[in-house]
Amino acid sequence: MTHDTHIRPTSIVVFGGTGDLAKRKLFPAFFNLYIDGRMPEQFQIIALGRQVFDQEAFRDYVHENMLAFSRNPNFLKEQWDEFRKHITFFNAHIDDDQSYQDLHQLISQNDDRWGERGNRLFYLSIAPSFIEQVSNGLKTFALADNVAGDRIIFEKPFGYDKSSAIRLNEMLAKTFHEEQIYRIDHYLGKETVQNILAFRFGNSIFEPLWNNRHIDSVQITVAEQVGVENRGGYYDHSGALRDMIQNHLLQILCMVGMEAPNEFESEQIRDKKADLLKSVRRIKREDINHYTVRAQYAAGEINGQPKKAYRDEPGVDPQSRTETFVAMKFYIDNERWLGVPFYMRTGKSLQQKHSAVVINFKDSTKTKFPANRSSIENNQLTINIQPEMDIRLSFMSKQPGLDMEMTPAEMVFDYFQCASNGPEAYETLLLDALDGDSTLFMRSDQVEEAWDIIESIQEEWEHGDLSPIYTYPAGSWGPEEAEELLKRQGHRWLSSFPPFTKSETQKHGTTV
Amino acid sequence: MTHDTHIRPTSIVVFGGTGDLAKRKLFPAFFNLYIDGRMPEQFQIIALGRQVFDQEAFRDYVHENMLAFSRNPNFLKEQWDEFRKHITFFNAHIDDDQSYQDLHQLISQNDDRWGERGNRLFYLSIAPSFIEQVSNGLKTFALADNVAGDRIIFEKPFGYDKSSAIRLNEMLAKTFHEEQIYRIDHYLGKETVQNILAFRFGNSIFEPLWNNRHIDSVQITVAEQVGVENRGGYYDHSGALRDMIQNHLLQILCMVGMEAPNEFESEQIRDKKADLLKSVRRIKREDINHYTVRAQYAAGEINGQPKKAYRDEPGVDPQSRTETFVAMKFYIDNERWLGVPFYMRTGKSLQQKHSAVVINFKDSTKTKFPANRSSIENNQLTINIQPEMDIRLSFMSKQPGLDMEMTPAEMVFDYFQCASNGPEAYETLLLDALDGDSTLFMRSDQVEEAWDIIESIQEEWEHGDLSPIYTYPAGSWGPEEAEELLKRQGHRWLSSFPPFTKSETQKHGTTV
Repeated sequence: MTHDTHIRPTSIVVFGGTGDLAKRKLFPAFFNLYIDGRMPEQFQIIALGRQVFDQEAFRDYVHENMLAFSRNPNFLKEQWDEFRKHITFFNAHIDDDQSYQDLHQLISQNDDRWGERGNRLFYLSIAPSFIEQVSNGLKTFALADNVAGDRIIFEKPFGYDKSSAIRLNEMLAKTFHEEQIYRIDHYLGKETVQNILAFRFGNSIFEPLWNNRHIDSVQITVAEQVGVENRGGYYDHSGALRDMIQNHLLQILCMVGMEAPNEFESEQIRDKKADLLKSVRRIKREDINHYTVRAQYAAGEINGQPKKAYRDEPGVDPQSRTETFVAMKFYIDNERWLGVPFYMRTGKSLQQKHSAVVINFKDSTKTKFPANRSSIENNQLTINIQPEMDIRLSFMSKQPGLDMEMTPAEMVFDYFQCASNGPEAYETLLLDALDGDSTLFMRSDQVEEAWDIIESIQEEWEHGDLSPIYTYPAGSWGPEEAEELLKRQGHRWLSSFPPFTKSETQKHGTTV
Repeated sequence: MTHDTHIRPTSIVVFGGTGDLAKRKLFPAFFNLYIDGRMPEQFQIIALGRQVFDQEAFRDYVHENMLAFSRNPNFLKEQWDEFRKHITFFNAHIDDDQSYQDLHQLISQNDDRWGERGNRLFYLSIAPSFIEQVSNGLKTFALADNVAGDRIIFEKPFGYDKSSAIRLNEMLAKTFHEEQIYRIDHYLGKETVQNILAFRFGNSIFEPLWNNRHIDSVQITVAEQVGVENRGGYYDHSGALRDMIQNHLLQILCMVGMEAPNEFESEQIRDKKADLLKSVRRIKREDINHYTVRAQYAAGEINGQPKKAYRDEPGVDPQSRTETFVAMKFYIDNERWLGVPFYMRTGKSLQQKHSAVVINFKDSTKTKFPANRSSIENNQLTINIQPEMDIRLSFMSKQPGLDMEMTPAEMVFDYFQCASNGPEAYETLLLDALDGDSTLFMRSDQVEEAWDIIESIQEEWEHGDLSPIYTYPAGSWGPEEAEELLKRQGHRWLSSFPPFTKSETQKHGTTV
């Protein structure tokens, strides 16, 4: 997370080098790091693909994509002309031993040129079904045999349930040491998410309040306005629980709820996150309706445009019971959090794109204000992740005037104005991986614990009959039942209410 | 502080009704209350003066002053035409029994007109030397004999040291019940000062931090840019310790440091304030230089204009040893505050007008951030009283970018934008007095404790030889020794440093 200026020479190998992620995110990220002077002095990006590309044609293709997708499309021609030399296209077939041999040779040529055995970073931007084959190839041809310098980045999904995740981890463990494995959750690279750690542990005034004596409840929302778009076929076999809760939302939960590490150091932070996940109360199948609500979007309207129902989306089973929305509550049964509900919700085709954490403090004021006691609202700390990027502390202030009347007020720190054209999540995470800092990547035990947490829910939703699947109109904030879930404990979803809903959310544009 | 809509009919008697305070503050305050519909339905303001005024001429004189001094000079003619009928000029001599008899008769006429014995509010805007005479007059002619409804407002000074304050209180106690006595400190009527109580006791998140486990030190500054102006003769017999520390600054200290009352109720709040003053550590004469710094302004420059030295001001003894600046530290030896220095400073002819409270939190972060540990600054809460009116919480945030670097950030609540044309302190305080709410007025024990706190300093400065009197150039922030006082404990005066000094202070105009 904080980097030496010097990173060893590195061969970067992108499996899926002609794919969508490489095009939109990885190449722009590497180039922006290059512009910022953060790439290693010596590096080569080897993009693997099954198509046949002429080297210069591939570089032109990357250049076109850079203009289209980089956050920084007005780069200098000279910088690009230098950078393009660092790109090599390599026609490979992942089921063909010859490809690995040739790749080995190509990388060795880099090493020869650099006069030392460089580091190697393998980015596996490929379908899960190919991972084992690639891993075996890397092992057989000793491509990643330097534990200290060779790293492998994986994208989610890390399995589709707990047992498949364990199998995947076991398979990977045969080939790589755990410290070589970088499981990427791009949510953790977002400035506002990283800032949760900075905020909690870089200040002395929040930590004393950060527990069940002072916090009443916590809400984590990751709302998408988009539907499944052209990913209906994939999504219908996944769903919001697996696609969002198991990773992004539980990772944010870790950031908010974890104990303080003694040092701000990768393994200590990951230990504390794993500890937190272990403390999350497992939900019994028979209690499922007490803790969870699932739903699918029906036809509706978003921003004045009609939006079809989930079951009518291309690639989706017309009888589908896959959830596009989840609201649920977690409890963390440790000393710090005992009794504090952590409410989470995520969904597609919701009214607005909106990701936020809300810390709702208890009303523990001892002094009774006269007359208008009921007007006193609890303090709230809101960390807006996107598209808003700010921190808001709401508190009670004297209403200016002749009486001691109280009125809600807000202190705001606008992170957007300083972070809006900052590095994208992938830049942060790729630099971390190049530099061997795994703080923001998920360790195998975190992944398995996260699956363990949702296992009973997955089982009941897939095989049981206790849990109805509700619907909500596209463009709403989800089903009424999601409100009921909180109302039972005297709470309500915050920050999806005016004034927030009205005007402020459309002004920034970043991607989920 | 929170008022019933109905206040009983009241005869308001202003001793010193032709004086400066009545002209600039009292009449405008009563009229603004009237405009706001906050005066009693039936009231008469009887302005006492030694000059002879025709009734209509006096009302015209009040009208002129209203145009000149009211915060709201664009009032409606109809409102003024109604209000002026409520003003009666009364030619009186406070050493003449006949005046009291006539006043009695005048008030009785009001009562007759109202069909009930109204409340009476006597505002003694007169020199201290006349107070005993007026008190005796009020007692002799039974003018304030209804304990529940008759009240007397006094201005400071409430004595000039502890023993004179006790004598004054004893004298007043012969005539009035303590609950009838309203000792006014207009600083306590300021919105931003009142808001300290609202802020502390209307929120649950600050009180857990409000103690010596989390607070490192507190600073209270009341800086004036003006010199002694035409009050040199008076001021030279008073000085900053008596004129400012004993009242305004110790009262702010009470707001910041007091324990929470069980209810937001006048006597409970005043009990807690008196408790706090009792807990303030008394300074031994021999330790005086450890705790205090006194100084006088020398010639200098303010806002580009030359400013003469204090000793050259009209009415000031050229050999004067009266302090125009005090910096000192207090300790509150109770469980909450043990070991926390409360630094105070006040002075005239300083660089800027600036009153603020700064709460400086401890660095108790347990987690060690890498590399740039030294860049982490302690959290600070700044309550700007005037001319700024805001609350600022400084904290550390992630510096947007690829590294986990920390940078100071600030959340700001701008009270000015909602309070800038709100009621002046005198409006608040006069309404409180009309309504019988003494929360913001000083009780006799508070006054005596405050004198007790500074007694040893007064004695040493007046009669001892331990304590040098330093000088500072007009237009500076005081003598170097005031910095030294804090430096010994690793502190420095805050909020008189950039960016504060540069630009922001001139934009609002309110009066000390």
